Amino acid sequence: MANEPIFGTLALIGLGHIGSSVARAARKHGLVGQVVGHARSARTRDTAMALGFVDRVEADPAAAVDGADCVMLCTPLSAYEDLARAFAPALKPDAIVTDVGSVKGCVRQSLAPQLPAGVALVPGHPIAGTEQSGPEAGFAELFEGRWAILTPDGAPNAAVDRVASLWRGMGSMVEIMSAEHHDKVLAITSHLPHLIAYTIVGTAADLEDHTRAEVIRFSAAGFRDFTRIAASDPTMWRDVFLNNKEAVLEIIQRFNEDLTALQRAIRWEEGDKLHELFTRTRAIRRGVVKAKQA
Amino acid sequence: MANEPIFGTLALIGLGHIGSSVARAARKHGLVGQVVGHARSARTRDTAMALGFVDRVEADPAAAVDGADCVMLCTPLSAYEDLARAFAPALKPDAIVTDVGSVKGCVRQSLAPQLPAGVALVPGHPIAGTEQSGPEAGFAELFEGRWAILTPDGAPNAAVDRVASLWRGMGSMVEIMSAEHHDKVLAITSHLPHLIAYTIVGTAADLEDHTRAEVIRFSAAGFRDFTRIAASDPTMWRDVFLNNKEAVLEIIQRFNEDLTALQRAIRWEEGDKLHELFTRTRAIRRGVVKAKQA
Repeated sequence: MANEPIFGTLALIGLGHIGSSVARAARKHGLVGQVVGHARSARTRDTAMALGFVDRVEADPAAAVDGADCVMLCTPLSAYEDLARAFAPALKPDAIVTDVGSVKGCVRQSLAPQLPAGVALVPGHPIAGTEQSGPEAGFAELFEGRWAILTPDGAPNAAVDRVASLWRGMGSMVEIMSAEHHDKVLAITSHLPHLIAYTIVGTAADLEDHTRAEVIRFSAAGFRDFTRIAASDPTMWRDVFLNNKEAVLEIIQRFNEDLTALQRAIRWEEGDKLHELFTRTRAIRRGVVKAKQA
Repeated sequence: MANEPIFGTLALIGLGHIGSSVARAARKHGLVGQVVGHARSARTRDTAMALGFVDRVEADPAAAVDGADCVMLCTPLSAYEDLARAFAPALKPDAIVTDVGSVKGCVRQSLAPQLPAGVALVPGHPIAGTEQSGPEAGFAELFEGRWAILTPDGAPNAAVDRVASLWRGMGSMVEIMSAEHHDKVLAITSHLPHLIAYTIVGTAADLEDHTRAEVIRFSAAGFRDFTRIAASDPTMWRDVFLNNKEAVLEIIQRFNEDLTALQRAIRWEEGDKLHELFTRTRAIRRGVVKAKQA
């Protein structure tokens, strides 16, 4: 006998890489009764219907959340406030609102003031994704073995448990922490790496044409991993940096100090110092491999 | 009927990740009559014999090159000069000496003065490898579809052709350029990415224990790609930075300027500027994918 679904109706606001993966995974594992999708662009809505990972699409966000037990925002962060304002009047009185955004401190700020009393807000962030974007890029297995972080910051336990069950049902491990702590940790595990990758690929893009062609040709020597990261969605990442400004600027500062120290060691040919640092970083890699996140 | 091998005897000085991969690939494709290996450590020599990718090992580099038609150095760059001094008297009068080092300008400097007249020096660099090291990590397919750069800088054509044929036989595409140009291009495609990865992973290693554990746990968000690069062999990379100092310092400078500009755009919340840069870098990724180096 099949289990009762966690949510009768799941409304997905945004049907890109992550939204479409949630739709696929939630349906695959029977976690929801039906999935209703909203996307701003008609082409995305048509694609979602054609690919068949939603039961219905709505051009109006309010129509999409009407009757939904859970509403999940899967758009860039900058769209949250206007969307919430548009759909809030149509929310069920006991609906749960959640999201998948890469910064969490700003979510309560942009969503909470719009939501009626009784609606629980449980911000979330699956640590999963590829450099692909769009509804075609989603797949049901994206979240398997990956972490999903929830930052309820005072939301009712019952609502937190249901959102956690949804992620666990899609194969994720769930961790709960404060939004502030999330943003500090992700500044180093995600935001700084992306910023650095965008920078180094940008530096290469500025080279004269001939050298740039060679950089592409010989990219297998390390550079290509950065190009993959730097191919991530520009709007999403602009919003990340604008919304996690303080933590990102703080970690850039630390990174800069460390890079300057290395630069100085190269200039003064301090081989022992270089060797020591290059050895120390291996332990972190072993940790990543051991934590099965490699 | 099998083709004539390109070299009767290939001597590999250094039997780590790259050396052992050359041994495996050269034998697999019948490119050499026999492979003789030298490694400083008895354990590496024993492993090479146990894995069976060499015909013979020698503890003395001179004994290893005795009778060899081609000698290929596959050790860290800092070992080249002493090794060449040790094996030079035993070289065949018409032997070809080549290498696989990641910096090329320094190779002529450290090797040429040791070599007898008549011995051709054809420095080389396969743009292939993983973060693994040691003889167990090698495999015959490592060079397939990858570039091998040769920097003959005046070596006789016949010698260059034979070394090029060896790399083509192992599945590589061959490009010829000056050592100086190689070092400039690789400073951005390889040396800077590695330096940046070592830096960012080092920055994380300095975090307090609790945060560091979380950085490892949530590394799938971008950081883990850097940990892979920063797990590369410390001695090899120390030598790269000491031997390509000028080009690396120059490219760090450009990178720093670009990072400062991005940092400033974040501080002043210049979303359009961020979006523009994050879009521009996608074209480079498309180039890498199109060049089949992804």
